[in-house]
This record gives sequence, structure tokens and C-alpha cells, in this order.
Amino acid sequence: MQAFPSGVIPPLVTPLTVDRDVDVEALERLVNFQIDSGVHGLFALGSSGEVSFLTDVQRDTVVQTVVASADGRVPVLVGAIDTSAARIVEQISRAADRGADYAVTTAPFYAKINQRDILDHFRHVAGHSALPVVAYDIPVAVHSKLAPTTVLTLAEERAIVALKDSSGVQAQFREVVMGNRELGRPLKIFTGTEVVADADLLIGADGIVPGLGNVDPASYGELYNLLAAGQWEEGRILQDRLVHLFRIINADESLTGPAQAIGAFKEAMRLRDIITTSVTAAPSTLLSEPAKKTISTIVTAHFA
Amino acid sequence: MQAFPSGVIPPLVTPLTVDRDVDVEALERLVNFQIDSGVHGLFALGSSGEVSFLTDVQRDTVVQTVVASADGRVPVLVGAIDTSAARIVEQISRAADRGADYAVTTAPFYAKINQRDILDHFRHVAGHSALPVVAYDIPVAVHSKLAPTTVLTLAEERAIVALKDSSGVQAQFREVVMGNRELGRPLKIFTGTEVVADADLLIGADGIVPGLGNVDPASYGELYNLLAAGQWEEGRILQDRLVHLFRIINADESLTGPAQAIGAFKEAMRLRDIITTSVTAAPSTLLSEPAKKTISTIVTAHFA
Amino acid sequence: MQAFPSGVIPPLVTPLTVDRDVDVEALERLVNFQIDSGVHGLFALGSSGEVSFLTDVQRDTVVQTVVASADGRVPVLVGAIDTSAARIVEQISRAADRGADYAVTTAPFYAKINQRDILDHFRHVAGHSALPVVAYDIPVAVHSKLAPTTVLTLAEERAIVALKDSSGVQAQFREVVMGNRELGRPLKIFTGTEVVADADLLIGADGIVPGLGNVDPASYGELYNLLAAGQWEEGRILQDRLVHLFRIINADESLTGPAQAIGAFKEAMRLRDIITTSVTAAPSTLLSEPAKKTISTIVTAHFA
Amino acid sequence: MQAFPSGVIPPLVTPLTVDRDVDVEALERLVNFQIDSGVHGLFALGSSGEVSFLTDVQRDTVVQTVVASADGRVPVLVGAIDTSAARIVEQISRAADRGADYAVTTAPFYAKINQRDILDHFRHVAGHSALPVVAYDIPVAVHSKLAPTTVLTLAEERAIVALKDSSGVQAQFREVVMGNRELGRPLKIFTGTEVVADADLLIGADGIVPGLGNVDPASYGELYNLLAAGQWEEGRILQDRLVHLFRIINADESLTGPAQAIGAFKEAMRLRDIITTSVTAAPSTLLSEPAKKTISTIVTAHFA
Repeated sequence: MQAFPSGVIPPLVTPLTVDRDVDVEALERLVNFQIDSGVHGLFALGSSGEVSFLTDVQRDTVVQTVVASADGRVPVLVGAIDTSAARIVEQISRAADRGADYAVTTAPFYAKINQRDILDHFRHVAGHSALPVVAYDIPVAVHSKLAPTTVLTLAEERAIVALKDSSGVQAQFREVVMGNRELGRPLKIFTGTEVVADADLLIGADGIVPGLGNVDPASYGELYNLLAAGQWEEGRILQDRLVHLFRIINADESLTGPAQAIGAFKEAMRLRDIITTSVTAAPSTLLSEPAKKTISTIVTAHFA
Repeated sequence: MQAFPSGVIPPLVTPLTVDRDVDVEALERLVNFQIDSGVHGLFALGSSGEVSFLTDVQRDTVVQTVVASADGRVPVLVGAIDTSAARIVEQISRAADRGADYAVTTAPFYAKINQRDILDHFRHVAGHSALPVVAYDIPVAVHSKLAPTTVLTLAEERAIVALKDSSGVQAQFREVVMGNRELGRPLKIFTGTEVVADADLLIGADGIVPGLGNVDPASYGELYNLLAAGQWEEGRILQDRLVHLFRIINADESLTGPAQAIGAFKEAMRLRDIITTSVTAAPSTLLSEPAKKTISTIVTAHFA
Repeated sequence: MQAFPSGVIPPLVTPLTVDRDVDVEALERLVNFQIDSGVHGLFALGSSGEVSFLTDVQRDTVVQTVVASADGRVPVLVGAIDTSAARIVEQISRAADRGADYAVTTAPFYAKINQRDILDHFRHVAGHSALPVVAYDIPVAVHSKLAPTTVLTLAEERAIVALKDSSGVQAQFREVVMGNRELGRPLKIFTGTEVVADADLLIGADGIVPGLGNVDPASYGELYNLLAAGQWEEGRILQDRLVHLFRIINADESLTGPAQAIGAFKEAMRLRDIITTSVTAAPSTLLSEPAKKTISTIVTAHFA
Repeated sequence: MQAFPSGVIPPLVTPLTVDRDVDVEALERLVNFQIDSGVHGLFALGSSGEVSFLTDVQRDTVVQTVVASADGRVPVLVGAIDTSAARIVEQISRAADRGADYAVTTAPFYAKINQRDILDHFRHVAGHSALPVVAYDIPVAVHSKLAPTTVLTLAEERAIVALKDSSGVQAQFREVVMGNRELGRPLKIFTGTEVVADADLLIGADGIVPGLGNVDPASYGELYNLLAAGQWEEGRILQDRLVHLFRIINADESLTGPAQAIGAFKEAMRLRDIITTSVTAAPSTLLSEPAKKTISTIVTAHFA
């Protein structure tokens, strides 16, 4: 297993064929493109990877492909997304069998749960996990928020090794960063909010998991380096450029869910020849032609 | 396959052993108890069945046990609860292989989705399902609500045969009932709100899926018969008695999720010797001793 | 002061002139129309009355006009809608000075508040109020829900004389009804959910505050009488007819807030010559012409 | 009228006497303390000022006192907090009569409203306002969020001169900042999130409206100067110190609303002799003695 990195860890989209199955060839291409662009790790089967739409067999294919293509060059994180601890442990086991380095997982969803039970949930997962565990805080999907005290208790108990915070609640994010510092930094803390990564790194994040990094990993790498070097204003300007690029996700406002942000990322990647189609998982509606044109205009301007 | 019934269809709890595995013997006892009490169908692996906490192997055990014990006396509905259409189709296939009669399933969760995609989701499930599909509207778990027009479109297309409405939004429930009547009643419509079943049957529900029916199915059967006979005031009085019994779920206010309502149901069932333990799925906290006393007092008074 | 009635108490819209000022003549007409239709009380300055949009001077005009027109024939309830206890007491004082019989008021809004403080809020209002107080539970506007225990504590302390429940949370509504019965019925309990009034009366409501009663008070009176006489199925059929009429509020789906439901009520009333314009308070957008046509079709069919 | 400043504008608490009336003497002391500490403006009658709990007479007293005490040394912003445009215009008029420089106001609350109507609401306010208007985005109180396009449209039309963003939604905050830059900076943009002011200033805010600035305005002034000078890491460290101080608001977790954060601010101010009591507006529960001890410990450590 590789040491947990700092820096940029893109949450890989899952390229699909026109028949909506995993496009193994395109996924291999994507992995190589990302590593060549200098990313510090790869995160397969996250929300950007449309994990909740993939069957177990498809998930296995993704993990196998990413691990094989990465070939030890960077660590591979895999989302173990399921409704409860027992099911998550099974997902982790499948990922571990296929060579993943870290498992990324959330609080239970579907069943309503309080912070005390969320704590026990992660303890249970950690106690039975074949891989070190990264806590994933994504209230928009899970419909509960990991309280800073929950995260810090798990850190103190060494039940988790890292946090991916996609909550967008920056005040609590800061509480976790400060608490982690007081504990001697047992956690690596990553922000999933790709449009304010500069601000989150100023606050003290160790790295970024940018969905938009699928499209332009080089700029996120440059952003991370600028900020690590204390060049905050230059970083802010580059981050602003990436926010402009991020506007591709509003190209088709009639869509929600995977079809909107992820469809836009995939279309931009297709335009750059990183993957082959912009198809998203069934039953999501596909991008309209006018939306594709808007995306093309923004992408062309960004990379000009 | 048996015809879809009207009447009372209890959402069976999943009895667990002290080691938190499926208690097959207790589940058999529960099935027989329910059928002997006159219920019109059985619903395994619903929210009351803690479905989201069970592994696939445990789910298989539940279905197998319920189908074998029911032995064709009443139809068996099985919850196919997973995050997306493709995964749900697999869950349905496992249930069908084990003899289930109907599959009960929800809109996608985890990924955010709009009504247009929810419609396509159910169409996709229906088109690939090994069993007739019942739509399950439970916003507290899924975090989206099935719009009345979505349900009615699916009814018109014969993609679904029934609705279980656990939304508690009675105004929209009525819209579905009225729309279904206008379509010639393609759907059987069930309410999951066990404390206002009288009101929902007045509005036009075909039946009840009462979690509390695990504890007192006979009273729900009597309630259904009273209301079917137009004895609304007598029904209201009996429903009030059941609401008194339902107060067991507030016995331990520090709990949420399975441990609260389902733990209370299980404890009441244990007191009545219907099952053997009141254990709920990990990692939920178990009922405190004072809470158990409160439940015992309420249960004793109810059945006196 | 008149005794608090059971039955139908319409929440009067506030008719406006084309200049968006209070249309006193139309309001007088509306009061007479309602009383002639047999309603048991009048509720001015509720949400249907667009109270939050009216200045204090306009509110005074409304109260004065309604009290004068009612002329003691039925009791007049007045909404005292403001952000805190001290401000509400002032609103009640103005209404009392102009002859109102009862004040209807909510929990604080704008500032976040818990149930303990909501209890003290109503105690403070009751202790300083020039009129008997009706608690108004309308989470869609206030963004908190009155817990059943809060309402029942206030009832027991005689701090409030009635409840108007517009929460649509029927399970909790039933808890209040049952608790009130156990206390010897200190409260009159009204439902504000005009589309399931039959169900709420079955559960035990004392009456209805139907926004749609502005348009068709006679039918709500008939509904109340049918249900009071135990004719539940006939009542259900009439309620269904009123639900059909209620569909006027969906005529213009681009609107929200006052312009949607209240604009539709006003347009239907205008068509029936009960008021003069369908103008709603600034800055709400007015109904489109196609929406008006849809409303006209529904209204014509209903009263044919 | 004074030009709209950049920098630190504390949202003044409203000091109360033990009888819960406005403590004019303490308010004068507070104004002088703030100005002596170098703040760039004063904001009276915001959420920290418990505006929603004060009567109009009390609000007038606050404005009069703050304007007289400020005596032209810094501009005075006044919250015009009410449920609708017409009522807000009246509040602004009262503030203007008493010498306020700017009015700060929100979207309508109580009535549900969409972005189109929010736009017209601000246009209506601006068209009738006696003072230049600052838009106040505070979803926790108003229960709707100002969309970036709404704010930018109002900026382009010169209907508003500034934005106070207390939404905590940093991604959208950035969109406003970037859009404002593209428009040639018609708006001054302030963040109300006192615990990530460093991050918001990096993104491009013109200043801070920190509730905690009531307690320690000098540090916020220093923070602003550090960041304006590009000393981001030093700023981050000072911001972290202020976050430690901010923990006073968690001293009494049983409280919500004014009694929690504002009660804690007031207690800390009382300990520093800036005001005389820590009383919050009725009916909020007051801080417990253990909570006061916790606050005292944190405050003593901070200013040691």
C-alpha cells in the first residue's frame, strides 16, 4: 500500500460506451492522462464516477482497470458506497481483492441516523475493513453531515486516515482542520469543492478532489503548487479561471444529477479526446445539442 | 403469482439473533402469526425490515424464509431497495428466484434526480423486472417525493401495479387516489401511515401497510373491516387505540433510525412472544431498560 | 366577544384595487357573501389575506371593514403576524381597538427558535394580549412546527383557545386532537388543509379554515354538515369535487407565493362577481391570460 | 451621506437592560468602543442586533442612539427587516428620518417567493427607498437564497450598492464576486461569515460584517489589514485565533436563536465592560451559569 498523498486526487468519471456499459479502453486512457498530468492519486467510484448507478460487476471492472492502468504509479482510492456498514465492508473487500489502496465511504444513507450511530458505523467499518478508510462527507447525497466532533473522534481513534469534505460548509471544515492540527494531524483533509479550492487550502486543506480535474488536471496541479508556495493571489486568479470553466455544468439547466455536472465533464473530456462518449448512466437524460455547443465554446476558450 | 390484494399487508420486521444475524426461526413464527391473524399479504424487506442494513445473503435468507413459511397462503411482496435501476433489477431477480410475488422499489437515492428521470427509472426497472413492480414513496429515506403525475403516468403505462405511500403528504395522496379512479383504477393504493389509516381509507386507499401491524395485526384487520363496512366512527375509535399503542416508539427519545421505531416494535413483539429478541441491526444503539419498561406498560394496557 | 365557533371559518382574501390598495367595497361584498353563505366565523389577515404584504395602515383598514361589515353576525378572527412577541402584542392591540374578537398568531419567525422558547413566546403573547389567542401552525411560512406537546401545554394553561393547523402533518394533528380530548377539550381545533377536510374531521377537527372557501363557502358548509351528521361517504364525494375546483391553483405553474394560490382564488371570485379584481400584492407577478382561461373553465364546470 | 466603506463593519448587538429594554447608555459606549477600535462602519439592527424582536419604537431608539454617537465619524447602516417591500420602505423611512446612511434589507420572508419576485421586490424597495440599499442574504432567517444572477442583475441596475452575504455558500459567493468584477465592481461585497473571513477576502470580498467583532473589533481590523497587505498566512493564523474565541457560542448547547450566539457575544462584552448586561430579548432563555464560566475562560485566554 502506498502512503496517503497530499495534493490533487481527481474523482474519476466512469467513461461509458454508447450502450451504457463501462468503456474500459477510455478508462485506461483517462488514468494515463491523469497520471501524465501529474496528479497525486486517483479516486475511482466516487459520485463523479456515478458509483450509485453501477452494478457490482461494473464496479469491479472499474477498480480492476484503474488499478492495472495506474500500475503503482499513484495510490488508488475506491468508493465503497452502500447503505450500511455490513454492505460497505463487502464493497471494500471486493475493492481490496482487486488491488485498491484506500476505501472511501460515507455515513449510512436511506435509514435516518444520528451522530452517535454514525460514529459506531465508521468504527464498525474500520474494524472489519480490508483497507484503510477515508471518511466521505457529502450531505447532498447522504442527507446527513458528519459533525466535526464525529470526524475528530474517528481521527483520534485512528479509525480513519483521511477526510474528503464535499459538504461546502466551510465553517465546519475549518473546525475539522483546526481540530486535526491540535491532534497532531492524524488526518489528511481534502476538499471536494473545486471552485473554492484556493480558500480551502488557505484554511489548511491538504489537497483537492476536484470533479473538474477530470477535464483539466494540469491546472489543478498548478493551483496546488502555487498555493503550496504561498502565491495566494496567483492561485486565486487561476482558481477563477477554473470557475469560468466550471460553468459548463450549467449548459443544460433542465438536467439534474449525473446528467448535469458529470455529463458536462464527460462532454468536455470527449472534446479533448480524453474519453470517447459523453454518455451518462441510465436513466439519466443526455445533454442536448445546444448544451453541447455551449460546453464546446467554454472549453475552447479555456484551453486557447 | 397471486393477485394483488386489498387490505392489510404488514411490513415485516426482520427478527435478529443476539449476534445480529437473521433469526430464521423467529421469522417463521412471525409469518405464521401474521397469516393466522388474517393479514392479506406480507411485505418483507421494507424499511421496517431494516432492509438497508442487510447484506444480499441476509436478504436472500429473509425472502426464502418468508416465501416458504407463507407457502402460498398470501402473496409475498419484497423490497428491492438499492441506489439505481440496474442494481434494483438485480435485487428483484434474486427475490424472484426465491419465489417472491411482487417487488417494491423506490426512486433512485444517493444521486439527486428529477421527476423526468424518476419516470425513466421506473420504466427501466419495469422493463427489466422479473416481477410486477410496486412503487414505494418514502421521502424520509429517499429524499425525493414521487409526484402524483409521475405515479399516474406509470399507472397508465402499466409499469407499476400498486403504490405504497409512506410520504405522509395527504393532499398529494388524494390526488393520486382521484387520478387513479379517473384512469379506471389500474393501481392498488396503500398507505404506510399507520396512525391515520382511517383517514386514508376514507380518502380511498385500498389498504394499509402498517409497521405497527407487526405488533397487533388483528386490530388492523378489524380496522380495515370496519371501514370497508362504512363504520367510520367505530373505525376512528379503534384507530385512536392503535395510536395509543404507537406511542411505544417514543419510549427512548435519544434514539433515531431503526433503533427507535423498529426497536420498539420488536420489543413489543418480544413481550408478546412473537419473536425472540428486540435486537436491531448494527450499528444502531439498543433500547435502554427504562424505555423497555415504558413499552411494557403501554403494551400491557393495550392488550388487557 | 362572541364564543369561539365550530364549523367553517374562511381565511378571507384581501381584495385589492388595480393600484394594489385595499378594495374596501369588494371586501364588504366578500364579508356579506360569506355570511350569507352560512359560514360560522371570519378570519381576516391570514396567509390567504396576504397579511405579510400589507402595511399596518392597510391591516387596520381590513380589520375595520370586516368588523363593521360582519356587524356581530359571526365572530371575527384577525391574524397578528409579526416576528416576535412584543411586535405581535402591538398588532393584537390594533386589532382589538378595531373590534376583532380573536387574534391568530404564530411562533416567532426570522430568528431561529426552539420549542422551549416557542412555549414562552406564546405565554408572553397570551399574558399581554388584548384578545384571546389562537395558535397558528404554518411551517411553510414560519419554518418551524408547533410540537403537539407545545400546543397541549398551552391548552392546559389556557394560554390559547384554539389551534389553526396548516401544517399538513396529519399524524401530529391527530396527536393534538387526542391530547385535547384527554384534557377535556380546552381547544377548538381547526384544519387549514382544505383538500382533506373530510379526513381531518373524521380524526376529530372542530372545523375548517379553507382558503378555497373564499370561492365556494356553501360547499364547505354542506361538507361540514354532512360530516357532522356522520355521512362520511357523501362528504368524501363532495370533498373530491372541491379538490377538482382546487386545481385552479395550478393554472399558472410559473408562479409561487401569493400570486399562485391566492391569485387563482381571486380570479375565481372575480369570475363569480364576489370581488372586482384578481390583483395580488406587489411585487408578485400577476396571472397570465392562459392561466385565467384555465381557471375559468374549471370554475364554470364546478358551478354548472 | 458617507461613501460606502471597505473593511470591517460590525453588526452591533443591541444591549438590553435587565428589564429587557434598550440600554441606551451601553449602546453609546459600544459605538464609541467600536469606532475607537478602528472599524470602518457600523451596522445597527441586523440579526446580531436582535432586530426581529424589537418593536418599532425600540428600533427608532437604537438608530437614534447609534447615529448620534457615531456623529459622522463612520457611516451607519441600518437593518430594515420586515416581511414585504411596502413594510420595508416604511422601516427605511423611519431610519432615514433618524439619520441612517444605508438600509440593509432581505428578500420577503413568511410568504414563499421565487427569484423573479425577489428581483421585483428589491426593485420596488429601491424605487421607494429614502436610502441606498444593501442586499442582505441570510437564508437561515429568510429561508430563501439570493441567486447570484439576482444579485448581479440588481447590481447592474444600480438598485443595490452592496451585498452582505451571510449564506455561507462560498461557491455562489465567488460567483457574485466574479460577476461583480466583470460588471466593473458596482457592488461592495461583504461576508458575514466571521470564521472564514480570510478565505472570503482571498476570494475577493471587500470587507467583513463579523458578529464576533462586537467582542474583538481590533483583531478583525488587524485581520483586514493583514489580508489587504497580502499577508495571507499571518491572516490565517489570526483568523484561527478568532475561531477559538468564537467557540463561546457553543457554551450553552441547550439554547438556540438569539440566546445562543448573541447571548454569548453579550456575555463576553459584559466581561470586557463594553456593555452592562448579557440579557437577550424575550422570550429567549438566558445563559446558564456554567455557560458563563465557559465563556469567561475562553475570553480570558483570548485576551491574555
